[in-house]
Amino acid sequence: MMKEWLSMIHEEAKEQCARLGQQTEQLLLWLSRYGADPSGGVTRLLYSESWLEAQQALAERMKQTGLTVSFDRSGNVYGRLEGLNPKAPAIVTGSHIDTVTQGGRYDGAYGIAAALLSLEYILEHHGRPERSIEIVSMCEEEGSRFPKAYWGSGSITGALGLQDVAGLRDADGIRFEDAMQAAGFGRPEQKDPVRSDIAAFIELHVEQGIVLEKEGLSVGIVDAIAGQRRFTFEVNGEANHAGTTPMLLRRDALAGAVDMMQWLRASALKYGAPLVATVGRLELVPNTSNVIPGQVTFTVDVRHDQADVLDRFCTAMLEQFERIAAAQELGLQHSLWMDAAPAPMTSSLSSLTESICQQYGIPYRHMVSGAGHDAQMFQRVCPTAMIFVPSHRGISHSPLEYTSLEDLGTGVFVLSRLLYDLGYSAGSTDAMKGMIR
Amino acid sequence: MMKEWLSMIHEEAKEQCARLGQQTEQLLLWLSRYGADPSGGVTRLLYSESWLEAQQALAERMKQTGLTVSFDRSGNVYGRLEGLNPKAPAIVTGSHIDTVTQGGRYDGAYGIAAALLSLEYILEHHGRPERSIEIVSMCEEEGSRFPKAYWGSGSITGALGLQDVAGLRDADGIRFEDAMQAAGFGRPEQKDPVRSDIAAFIELHVEQGIVLEKEGLSVGIVDAIAGQRRFTFEVNGEANHAGTTPMLLRRDALAGAVDMMQWLRASALKYGAPLVATVGRLELVPNTSNVIPGQVTFTVDVRHDQADVLDRFCTAMLEQFERIAAAQELGLQHSLWMDAAPAPMTSSLSSLTESICQQYGIPYRHMVSGAGHDAQMFQRVCPTAMIFVPSHRGISHSPLEYTSLEDLGTGVFVLSRLLYDLGYSAGSTDAMKGMIR
Repeated sequence: MMKEWLSMIHEEAKEQCARLGQQTEQLLLWLSRYGADPSGGVTRLLYSESWLEAQQALAERMKQTGLTVSFDRSGNVYGRLEGLNPKAPAIVTGSHIDTVTQGGRYDGAYGIAAALLSLEYILEHHGRPERSIEIVSMCEEEGSRFPKAYWGSGSITGALGLQDVAGLRDADGIRFEDAMQAAGFGRPEQKDPVRSDIAAFIELHVEQGIVLEKEGLSVGIVDAIAGQRRFTFEVNGEANHAGTTPMLLRRDALAGAVDMMQWLRASALKYGAPLVATVGRLELVPNTSNVIPGQVTFTVDVRHDQADVLDRFCTAMLEQFERIAAAQELGLQHSLWMDAAPAPMTSSLSSLTESICQQYGIPYRHMVSGAGHDAQMFQRVCPTAMIFVPSHRGISHSPLEYTSLEDLGTGVFVLSRLLYDLGYSAGSTDAMKGMIR
Repeated sequence: MMKEWLSMIHEEAKEQCARLGQQTEQLLLWLSRYGADPSGGVTRLLYSESWLEAQQALAERMKQTGLTVSFDRSGNVYGRLEGLNPKAPAIVTGSHIDTVTQGGRYDGAYGIAAALLSLEYILEHHGRPERSIEIVSMCEEEGSRFPKAYWGSGSITGALGLQDVAGLRDADGIRFEDAMQAAGFGRPEQKDPVRSDIAAFIELHVEQGIVLEKEGLSVGIVDAIAGQRRFTFEVNGEANHAGTTPMLLRRDALAGAVDMMQWLRASALKYGAPLVATVGRLELVPNTSNVIPGQVTFTVDVRHDQADVLDRFCTAMLEQFERIAAAQELGLQHSLWMDAAPAPMTSSLSSLTESICQQYGIPYRHMVSGAGHDAQMFQRVCPTAMIFVPSHRGISHSPLEYTSLEDLGTGVFVLSRLLYDLGYSAGSTDAMKGMIR
């Protein structure tokens, strides 16, 4: 009997997921027209014309849903569903509206679309919530126009301010503050972006990886956003004639770099998931077929969700690289140019999400997000949750980005249940109520 | 007594070497003015203005020495010292007049200067030889203007003809035949370059490597010019997000290339000198710090003086690279785009050179030339010898190219002795006379 009942719940959930999936795809296709790139994909760069059109179109859509719409000074736009208890801190859900150049239609946009559809869903099925719920379309996350990422969530959480962006220029030499002004933002009379009244932030996002698809799962519950460190190494040897220089008399910078890179991969494999280490960029000087490379420059990108593991790995890496360089009489220099701390997600929210998946028979797993997200900014100031849906073949930052309708809908379904549990007095447990005061 | 006598011979030789060294340096400085590059070094490209001036200046200098001067249709210039037996095949010595862009003043020019000074030396000390001796300033060897090397020696030995160069264009789009005509060559009435009347060819050259200097030697007797093969390999994996793709789910083209390159170096070291193997050029796609490399292209340059060793090494390399690619599920393509056979030098001439070094206490060694030279073309048609003098720090193809005056002079001294042994009835042994009919 229990089994049949469970089966029925699961079947019903599946139907709703399918329906929500259809709606989500429609919304994403609609949104993708803003910034549709003639060369393929979507290009919506911060403060550009298509960016502004997209934000305005979303604002209009939110109004149609009956939400109270507001922009802040940075260009983030909110749609607020006022709760029965309006003074209580609000639950906020959403993602970023900007894209990389020729990106897909899911990265960022899915979190916004899902927020909107979840809110409409619970409004329709459960009426007004006790706690206010807001959807947010954040102005910028990718750093694809100006060399500064997370401007949207950074503004909201107080991590970034005007002093961090003033003077930055895009590829055409346009200054950040001028672009902001030209788009109609950055005015003193506009609402200050910083908020200290957020009860919880929830972000739905496509995985941008291949794990969920490979394992046949529908939902990834993000336990932490990995910390990442990026280094550049410069190995110096001596360029020489490839024909006349005996092997034993060489100071081949590439030979040294090869040993370093082999160690790096072996060590990362030994540490095991979720540690990842990548050499993505490498250049030789003089890069000529009959000349021994005198100099090699390469980058290392290391990620893990625990800071002490990152420390241990990177310390061992630097020691080992020095040892290899010394053994081959090569010079070695390095610089650490990116160092983002791991951002653990709130475990009680992860648990709640897990319960929901179990309740409705949705195949899920816990995982670490290898990519950075707005959630890592919110995590510093309020309880935060991040939920992934699968990415087909892990493709992202590409017009080929894709998530099945069923998976899109499942994410929206889970989000709506989560908002229900957190926002409605009948929904949330006392523990939950206690958690977000 | 023997020791004192030897000591005396050695001392005298040293004095002569020093004197000849001074003269050589003067001649090289004089020659380096033709094509002196404002950015540094010497740039004398085939059929250019400075190239023509240099050949004409040399022709004039040869005339002053009393040599019979002639140009052939390709632009090679000879200075002939007629022997007492003018019908016998001549001994030819010299090198190439052209340079790479911003090269040094020794590469090629030294062989020509040494030939001239050696000839003047033996003319002065021994009078007219029995056999005719010619110095040659060959028009082209480097392939630095048009994509064809060894045009001078190739023309002389019949390995290259007009059909091999017609239509070739330089970086400015000028055709080979037009440049040749504009410089005054390529005319039907001019002397055909092909010669079948050469008794022996001897080339003096700077080592362009670091072996002689490292070992404190003055002369390198070249036993063979190494054969060389150059490959391009293309490794194909899958570009993916560096953060979100677990190590075990990657198809990292660079990881495969790293294993291949490590094997290559280990194998070359195992084979031992004179085998050399070099990865000089490497490129990643997309070459971005946070993207796993989806494609790597790299070149391999392998050299050895024995064709069967080259075969074995390259066969093993191709097998091993395929194995590595298969193990990591990577695609692998390759092309062989240069395949020059080894060119053994004539051992009787090497032995004669060795005797001369021993006689005068000149520190020497036998060695393989890792770089290609005009001698490899002559080796196909007549007895050939090549002699190296040290290159400071192995530097070549650079304004920093340098050989000490003492070493320059020692080379000229040895060459003059060799010409004496081969060209004068009192000089050469019966075995030598028998060798070059």
